[in-house]
Amino acid sequence: MVPSAVRVGLLGLGTVGQGVVQVLERNRADIERKVGRGIEIVRALVRDPSKPRPEGLPAERITGNVEEILGDPEVRIVVEVMGGTGPAREYILRALRSGKSVVTANKDIMAEHGAEVWAAAAAGGADVFFEASVGGGIPIVRAMKQSLAGNCVRRVAGILNGTTNYILTRMSREGLSLAAALAEAQAQGYAEADPSADLDGLDAARKLCILSSIAYSTRCRPAEVFRQGIRDIGPADIAYGARMGWICKLLGISELRKGAVSMRVHPAFVRREHPLAAVSDAFNAIYIQGDAIGEAMFYGRGAGSLPTASAILGDLMDAARFIDRGGSGTACTCFHQRPVEDIGAVISRFYIRLHVDDRVGVLAQIADAFGRCDVSILSVLQSPLSPGEALTGESGEGERAELIVVTHEVREDSLERAIAGLRRLASVRGVGAVIRLAPEDL
Amino acid sequence: MVPSAVRVGLLGLGTVGQGVVQVLERNRADIERKVGRGIEIVRALVRDPSKPRPEGLPAERITGNVEEILGDPEVRIVVEVMGGTGPAREYILRALRSGKSVVTANKDIMAEHGAEVWAAAAAGGADVFFEASVGGGIPIVRAMKQSLAGNCVRRVAGILNGTTNYILTRMSREGLSLAAALAEAQAQGYAEADPSADLDGLDAARKLCILSSIAYSTRCRPAEVFRQGIRDIGPADIAYGARMGWICKLLGISELRKGAVSMRVHPAFVRREHPLAAVSDAFNAIYIQGDAIGEAMFYGRGAGSLPTASAILGDLMDAARFIDRGGSGTACTCFHQRPVEDIGAVISRFYIRLHVDDRVGVLAQIADAFGRCDVSILSVLQSPLSPGEALTGESGEGERAELIVVTHEVREDSLERAIAGLRRLASVRGVGAVIRLAPEDL
Repeated sequence: MVPSAVRVGLLGLGTVGQGVVQVLERNRADIERKVGRGIEIVRALVRDPSKPRPEGLPAERITGNVEEILGDPEVRIVVEVMGGTGPAREYILRALRSGKSVVTANKDIMAEHGAEVWAAAAAGGADVFFEASVGGGIPIVRAMKQSLAGNCVRRVAGILNGTTNYILTRMSREGLSLAAALAEAQAQGYAEADPSADLDGLDAARKLCILSSIAYSTRCRPAEVFRQGIRDIGPADIAYGARMGWICKLLGISELRKGAVSMRVHPAFVRREHPLAAVSDAFNAIYIQGDAIGEAMFYGRGAGSLPTASAILGDLMDAARFIDRGGSGTACTCFHQRPVEDIGAVISRFYIRLHVDDRVGVLAQIADAFGRCDVSILSVLQSPLSPGEALTGESGEGERAELIVVTHEVREDSLERAIAGLRRLASVRGVGAVIRLAPEDL
Repeated sequence: MVPSAVRVGLLGLGTVGQGVVQVLERNRADIERKVGRGIEIVRALVRDPSKPRPEGLPAERITGNVEEILGDPEVRIVVEVMGGTGPAREYILRALRSGKSVVTANKDIMAEHGAEVWAAAAAGGADVFFEASVGGGIPIVRAMKQSLAGNCVRRVAGILNGTTNYILTRMSREGLSLAAALAEAQAQGYAEADPSADLDGLDAARKLCILSSIAYSTRCRPAEVFRQGIRDIGPADIAYGARMGWICKLLGISELRKGAVSMRVHPAFVRREHPLAAVSDAFNAIYIQGDAIGEAMFYGRGAGSLPTASAILGDLMDAARFIDRGGSGTACTCFHQRPVEDIGAVISRFYIRLHVDDRVGVLAQIADAFGRCDVSILSVLQSPLSPGEALTGESGEGERAELIVVTHEVREDSLERAIAGLRRLASVRGVGAVIRLAPEDL
């Protein structure tokens, strides 16, 4: 006997919600045969039900009243694609507590309120699926929770934000300034009017937390992630990197070291031969290192209506498959309470761009400032500066030179002290981008 | 109440089986917390129980009698890592029919006898997991069966054989001959003494069938795959490709076109910028194109004891999670019966290397031979040949030249006729490698 169709409520009918409706309609026959039963979106919650909608759901299924979804015991699965941590959070918690399985694309909620979501799921005996919250359509959450679950993961390194990857790709390929590349990203719809969450690495930090919580079985919080955005990166840095065989990427990196978790989001130079270096435009990729798998990478579109809908539909199909079996048996796996490693103790190699007075003795002063802080220098490249090539806040008098310093492996706190020391030198006119080199064993 | 440990029987204790034991022992505490119960390998079947084993399982758990596993009702899950289609096939079928879930790494059985395996699973109400049968540790099977299940997949393109990818990488980086690169692969343990299944594309064809069966919901058989191996590829071809910005890979490609499935394994030139081009050495990668996901790629080690153990453990954990819930709800999804597109109708661009007499009029003859078969030529590159640079079977008299012909998009059967026509020309001394260019929309 074929079971009856599963009734689904959709919270939100923006671009992602419409993508879900569209792909479900288009591929319905195969989707239902794979699941073994029908999947029916019986209600979709919108802010203004009177607003005209593109084709898809019949008008009578669109509602402004969330009770028609959360209060309907026949609705077994709730798909949340509203975004934000406002009402969406309460709706998710209520749905789970009343035994409805939840499929969500909400990275903010999963990163900031994951524990509470899992507790509600346990209380209601319901499933929570959140593949779409990281990496858009890339099947990384299920891969880590199930396929790689036998591994002790030691590192996650990801290009987790498509906007900044698009910007860095355009800067790299066309020599654009950050501002010009950002304007392009906005024109293409990749960046929002206020791009801060992207440029400053907050969006990437949230996704890194979701992945790290799964990877290390410990609750990771966005506030624990060291963040440095891409605002200081200029085309000159990208060009210097290219000469050395490096590509600049905004990486989210987390590592398990001696039982502690280290998490950071910052621009990093990746060797041109590394698989992450080939990830261009608005694509995302997640690179995993574990004790059994060795290394694995997952690549795809990190955002967009249809890729996100792909992830949501995969989750929705699983939710439908398990709804009459007492759930999927997956639950919160944050059973460790791992300490967070202080960023100061993390060891990296650094690239630093400086503007200095172009005269005898300056290089010795600079080398001394690094040496005092135990920062060992691998190489220094000096070039004369054309007039007008000034760093932010740089005073414009006298002959100057540009120095590119690359360090050996040093602790973050040592490097920080060295930079502070440099800033105190009268001969140092400006400190430009500080870019970490990706770990050598990445 | 914590459920009792799940009792598992292991069929085979070779390098993969030992890897499974090793990783399970090492990560046991976390693995069991994730699953919510213990996992105990109570018996391992070996050919010769008297043979000394590396540490891992206690000696009393090692047996030469398969009945101690298949005949024991307490054994709920069977992990098959014997390989081959001999006794492993009967053991898998028996286990499934008696309600034991099966985790297998056996690509031969899944590709050649998939229908019978699924039928046995349905008869016994048991689960079958086979993540390790394709791409070693790369989590591609679960991704396609679940995460991407909402998509209409239109293409799968994979580097599915690590041995040939290692060989092609060494030829590309070091200019080695195929024979020299093969000898290196054998010394490294990447290639077997008889490398035919790798070099001729049979191994890749089997994996392509497993992926294609899932992708298009139709049973795909290795005999239906067009195969061309890498034996004709020389360092000269790879060097020519490099000059044009192409990297040579052995690709397994399947496509869904007008309801029919096309499957082929052959060397292909991939644009240097494509993510597949960056997949080097013994790594594998699977590139998927679907209507919602757009494109996604999965990268990792396609073989080896621990990567394969990673995939098996992920499956084993799922099997353990579902064993008391009436199974995972996944089943055979080959509900379509799609026709297989004839290779002759497939359209590609081709690279062809020829040795010809170096005299006036020859080029016109060759262009004519192509033109008669409706093969439109994009470019011809002519270089003088050094003495001794002969193709297999080439006669060695007179001045000769090497021609590299690249065609526009043509049907396979047209190209085949054109090549037959070329072979009949007295001025054509030898036809070397014929390499397809990867589809333009890959």
